[in-house]
Amino acid sequence: MLERVLVANRGEIAMRVIRACFDEGVTSVLATSEADADSLPARAADVVVGIGPANASASYLNVGAVISAALLTGCDAIHPGYGFLSERPELVELCDRYGITFVGPSASAIRRGGDKIAARELARSLGIPVGAGSGSVSTVAEAEVVATEVGYPVLLKAAAGGGGRGMRRVDSPAELADAVQAAGSEAEAAFGDGRLYVEHYVAHARHVEVQVLADRFGTTVHLGDRDCSFQRRYQKLVEEAPASAVPAELRRRIGEAAVALMSALDYVGAGTVEFLVDVEQNIFSFLEVNTRVQVEHPVTEMVTGIDIVREQLRIAAGEPLSFTQDDVHITGHAFEFRINAESPTRGFAPSPGTLQVWNPPAGAGVRVDSHCFPGYRIPPNYDSLLAKLICRGATRDDALALAARALDAFDVAGIETTLPLHRALVRHPEVRGHRVTTRWIEDAFLDTWTREHAREDRAGKVMTG
Amino acid sequence: MLERVLVANRGEIAMRVIRACFDEGVTSVLATSEADADSLPARAADVVVGIGPANASASYLNVGAVISAALLTGCDAIHPGYGFLSERPELVELCDRYGITFVGPSASAIRRGGDKIAARELARSLGIPVGAGSGSVSTVAEAEVVATEVGYPVLLKAAAGGGGRGMRRVDSPAELADAVQAAGSEAEAAFGDGRLYVEHYVAHARHVEVQVLADRFGTTVHLGDRDCSFQRRYQKLVEEAPASAVPAELRRRIGEAAVALMSALDYVGAGTVEFLVDVEQNIFSFLEVNTRVQVEHPVTEMVTGIDIVREQLRIAAGEPLSFTQDDVHITGHAFEFRINAESPTRGFAPSPGTLQVWNPPAGAGVRVDSHCFPGYRIPPNYDSLLAKLICRGATRDDALALAARALDAFDVAGIETTLPLHRALVRHPEVRGHRVTTRWIEDAFLDTWTREHAREDRAGKVMTG
Repeated sequence: MLERVLVANRGEIAMRVIRACFDEGVTSVLATSEADADSLPARAADVVVGIGPANASASYLNVGAVISAALLTGCDAIHPGYGFLSERPELVELCDRYGITFVGPSASAIRRGGDKIAARELARSLGIPVGAGSGSVSTVAEAEVVATEVGYPVLLKAAAGGGGRGMRRVDSPAELADAVQAAGSEAEAAFGDGRLYVEHYVAHARHVEVQVLADRFGTTVHLGDRDCSFQRRYQKLVEEAPASAVPAELRRRIGEAAVALMSALDYVGAGTVEFLVDVEQNIFSFLEVNTRVQVEHPVTEMVTGIDIVREQLRIAAGEPLSFTQDDVHITGHAFEFRINAESPTRGFAPSPGTLQVWNPPAGAGVRVDSHCFPGYRIPPNYDSLLAKLICRGATRDDALALAARALDAFDVAGIETTLPLHRALVRHPEVRGHRVTTRWIEDAFLDTWTREHAREDRAGKVMTG
Repeated sequence: MLERVLVANRGEIAMRVIRACFDEGVTSVLATSEADADSLPARAADVVVGIGPANASASYLNVGAVISAALLTGCDAIHPGYGFLSERPELVELCDRYGITFVGPSASAIRRGGDKIAARELARSLGIPVGAGSGSVSTVAEAEVVATEVGYPVLLKAAAGGGGRGMRRVDSPAELADAVQAAGSEAEAAFGDGRLYVEHYVAHARHVEVQVLADRFGTTVHLGDRDCSFQRRYQKLVEEAPASAVPAELRRRIGEAAVALMSALDYVGAGTVEFLVDVEQNIFSFLEVNTRVQVEHPVTEMVTGIDIVREQLRIAAGEPLSFTQDDVHITGHAFEFRINAESPTRGFAPSPGTLQVWNPPAGAGVRVDSHCFPGYRIPPNYDSLLAKLICRGATRDDALALAARALDAFDVAGIETTLPLHRALVRHPEVRGHRVTTRWIEDAFLDTWTREHAREDRAGKVMTG
C-alpha cells in the first residue's frame, strides 16, 4: 500500500493522477512550478510543494528538484505522468537509491524499451516483424548506406526519442544530408543523445498500439488496441479504441506480440507497444515501446471499464493484477479528441490566453479530462493540451455521432483551439468510412479544410457585421 | 423512424432528450416558455417554439399549447420527459387524434397504471404482494374504517398522484380528519382528482424500483433495480443501482413481478414499478407504477450500458427491442445525487439566483446531466433541480469514494444547493454500511446534520473574518 504519492506533473494528467490517488485512498502531493501554483490540480491535491520557476527545465524537468520534493514531503512514491521525467531512467535510479517507489517500470526496462534501436533488436529476436531499417547511425555517410539499402522514402528518428522530435521524412538522396544534420541536432537538444536510426517509410499505414499492464509477479496482460492514425507531424490529434479497421486475426497477433515484448523487458506497470499496420497487405511491423501511461489511455478505459491509472498505483504498491487476459472484454467504441490551445488555421501556432468561456459538454457517454475552468489563464510555458474529450458509443458510428454533438456543444471563448478541426474531422466521409492512415490529415485533409474554414470564418464575419 | 420530436419539457431532461434525438438522427423541436427562451436546451435544440408565459400552467402544463406547437412545427412525435404532461392521458388522446406519436405508453396504460387503486387491484390479481390498504376513500368516515382495519400508522395517498403530493402520514386516529382534508385538497389541486387511498405505513422499508422497457411487439424486459430509499418528504434525494442490499432471490422475484405487471398493462416504452422491501423479513409489496422515464434513470444506464432515452425513441418509432432479458448485465454500482437550488439548512427553501460559479466535476466514472452553465440565471418558476451527478464505480464502495471526491470538487457559487448535504451523506457510516431505509434521512440524519452544518458554517465565517 502506498501512503503519499508525489505527482510530478501538471495539467490534465496531474488531475487524473490526483483523482486516482484519492480513489485508492492515497495522499496526493502535487509538485508544481510557480506558473501552476494557482492551478486546478493545486487546489485538488491534498498537499502542494513548489519545485521551481515556470521554466520546465528548472522545475518539471529538474530531477533533483523532484526527488528533493518527494523526500521533503515524506512521499513514498512518485507518479511521473507522461512527458517531462516520465521516461528518465536517472529519476528511477534516484528513486531506488532513496527507497521511493517509482510508479512505472524499472530503469533498465526504460533504457532497453525506450532506446529505439535496442527495442527493435529485441523485437526481431522474438520473431516480431520489424520494418526494414538500420542500427544507430551518426554520420550522413552511414545514413546514405542504410537509406539506399531500405529504399526511399526513409524516416530518420532519434534513437532516444519520442513525440516526433528528432524525426524527419526524407524522400530522396539529395535531402538526406540536411535532414541528418537537423534531426541529429534536435535529438541531441531534446534527449541529450544525437544518435539516429533510419527506417523505410511506410506510406499508407495505420498507427496501432497495444495497451499493456504488468505486475511485479510476471503477469502481463493487454487491454486491447487503439488506432492513432490521426496525426500531424507525428503528433496524435485523435485516437480511437478498438482498432476495428484491422482484421481480428491480425489484431490478435499484434496483441500477443506486445505482451511477448513487454514480458521480455520484465516490464512492470502501464506501457504501450506501437506498431505500423498495413491493412491491405494484412501485415504489421513493430515501431516502438512507450514506457509510460499515454495521453490516449482513456479510450481504452472507456471500452474495457478498467481504470489504468489506479492499476498503475496498485501495481506500484506491489499488488498482483486483479484480472487475467480472459477477463478483459472490449465493449463499444471510444474516441478521444485533443483540445489544444492552438490555432489550426495558422499552422497550429500556440494560442495562450484566458478562458473567458469554458463550458465543456457532458451527459451520457461523454468524458472530459481537463484542468481548465472558466477564467483560467493558460500559462505560455507548457504544452497546449487543454482537455481530452472522450466519447463512447455502442458502435463506432454511434461514438462519432455523439462526438459531433459534444464537439459542437463544447463552448470555449478567449483563445483559439483545435475544436473547429475536430468538428470537421468527425463529419468527414473518410473518417466515417474508417479509412484514415497516418499521412491522411497532412496529405489529404488539412490544406483543403484550412482554406474552407478560413472562408467560413470570413463569411461569418461579414454576416455578423 | 421518427423525423421531428417536440421536446415538451425544460431543464436537464430537455437537454437529455435533445441529445438522444441528435444521436438517433431525429430533429429536436423544443417547446419553451418565455422564462426558458435563453436556456441551454433552447440553444441545443434544432428548432425552438414558444408555448407561453413563464407560469407552467399556461405553458408546460397547457395541453392545447403543446399539441398546437407540435402541429405548427410539423412534429411527428412528442417526448414529454418527466413531470408536467408526462402522465396525462388527455395529451396522449390528442396525439392519437392528430396522428402524432406519443413517446410513452397508451392513454389506457397511463390511466390503469397511474391510478394507484386500479394498479393495486391489478397487482393483487397477478399474485403480486400488495400492502394492506383500501380502495378509494373520499370521506373521513371511510378513511377511519380502513385505517382501523390496516392499523396505524397509515399513509394517505392521492389515487391519481405522484411525487409526494397529496400524501400524509397519520400516526393516530386523532390526526386523521385534518390529514384527509389536507391531502384531499392537495390532490384535487394537483391532479384534479381528490380521491385518496389508505395503506398501512411500513416503517423500516426500502424503496426499490424496477426499470422496464417494452416494445410494441409484446416484448417486455427489465433493466434491473434501483434503491431509492434516500428520501425527504417522499422526494428522492439520492438513488443507486443495483439494489444490492436486497437478497438476490428477492430481487429476482421483484424483477419478474415488475415485468408481469407491465405486460398485463400492455405497457409500451420506458416505465418503472415501485416496491417497498423489508430486507429483514425478506418480503416485498407493490407500491405503484410510474408511466414515464424517471429522474433517476441514469444510474440504470451507468450499470447496464443501455441508453434508456434512445430506447424510448426507438420503441416509439415502432422498432422492436434490440436485446432480450438475457442480454441485460449489471456491472458495477452507480449513485445519482440531485443537486437542487435549495437551502438544506433552511427547510430546503428554494434558492433561485445567478450561478456566479458553475464548475461541475468530470473525469472517469463521472457523469453530470444538467442544463446549467456559468452565469445562468435560475428562473423561480419551476422545480429546483440544477444537475444530476452520477458516479459509477466497480463496487459500491468505489462509487461512494468517487462520489465523495466529485461532490467536493463540484464548485458552485451564487446560490445555495443541496451539495453540502450530499457531501455529508456519502461519508456517513449508515450510508457506507448500506443500511438506509426510507425514513432514515428525516428520522435519524437531517436534524443532527443541520445543527452541525450550521455550526461549521458559523465557524467558517468566524475564521474567514
